[in-house]
Amino acid sequence: MTDHASHPGYSEDKQKVLKRLARIEGQVRGITKMVENDTYCIDVLTQVSATTKALQAVALVLLEEHLSHCVVDAARAGGPEADTKVKEASDAIARLVRS
Amino acid sequence: MTDHASHPGYSEDKQKVLKRLARIEGQVRGITKMVENDTYCIDVLTQVSATTKALQAVALVLLEEHLSHCVVDAARAGGPEADTKVKEASDAIARLVRS
Amino acid sequence: MTDHASHPGYSEDKQKVLKRLARIEGQVRGITKMVENDTYCIDVLTQVSATTKALQAVALVLLEEHLSHCVVDAARAGGPEADTKVKEASDAIARLVRS
Amino acid sequence: MTDHASHPGYSEDKQKVLKRLARIEGQVRGITKMVENDTYCIDVLTQVSATTKALQAVALVLLEEHLSHCVVDAARAGGPEADTKVKEASDAIARLVRS
Repeated sequence: MTDHASHPGYSEDKQKVLKRLARIEGQVRGITKMVENDTYCIDVLTQVSATTKALQAVALVLLEEHLSHCVVDAARAGGPEADTKVKEASDAIARLVRS
Repeated sequence: MTDHASHPGYSEDKQKVLKRLARIEGQVRGITKMVENDTYCIDVLTQVSATTKALQAVALVLLEEHLSHCVVDAARAGGPEADTKVKEASDAIARLVRS
Repeated sequence: MTDHASHPGYSEDKQKVLKRLARIEGQVRGITKMVENDTYCIDVLTQVSATTKALQAVALVLLEEHLSHCVVDAARAGGPEADTKVKEASDAIARLVRS
Repeated sequence: MTDHASHPGYSEDKQKVLKRLARIEGQVRGITKMVENDTYCIDVLTQVSATTKALQAVALVLLEEHLSHCVVDAARAGGPEADTKVKEASDAIARLVRS
């Protein structure tokens, strides 16, 4: 569960991701306020699209990090672990593409 | 800006949307905690995909409401307003499909 | 089934859509050739993404046309038909957003 | 460009992908016929969504293959090549998620 912690560079990515997530939480609260105030639907929709895009950007950062750490490390370690990691990453990508 | 307020049924949809948004805000906070705790990337990605889907579901509720209220009302009122509303809705749909 | 045929402007949109579809068919054939020739995966993926975008663009043209003809006409005609058309359009949008 | 050709299993995946692409080409031709015959927009849209999904499924097969061959092989070979492959794959995934 914490096997990323030792990767150099993870904490930098981690801070970047946490910053983005804080911004996304603010965006969701902003959408809530817009709906409470009966803001025009189309303006609310624009904000929802922007927030969805921001979430997908977080996913892409996490995924690149996963490929460059977990998948590459497993490949270097040899053995069947690399296949498992690739399958797992591919499933995550599929969920992402379909969401 | 508040021309929805008078539509019957809007306040019901509004409560439904606000409930969903509260849940989404909780999901984003959950993702933040996962990243802080160095949860395995793939598990974080699964939550990000679920949250993205939840946001898109909110967008679809808002959009259906917009079509059945604003677009239909403008069409009934006659005049060029209906075209403007359709164009506006189509642009919002395009942003949604591309996000 | 052919209730669009009488709408002014439909045949212009129709020609535009048919042209785009012919281009998309060519793109799919191009991807086939790339795979047959063992083209580098990433280059094939770039073409697949471009073709997916082109298909979504066709969907958006068809949808805007549907909203401005069928939905607006049904709203003007009055009665429950407008609700049916809005529901139908919303379901189509949902399938599009999720695909 | 043809560095996949020697991977065991590639030709099986290749046949599978070519079969899917042939089906997608048929789907696009089907959509063309629907538009020519003025088929109801919503029915055309359903087919467009299905075809988009089919294209994304091809992309996911190609991507998994790419990760399990090119990325894993580069990681095993060592050196900076693995980073290049991961970056390239991540960019392709981003294009896919955004399309």
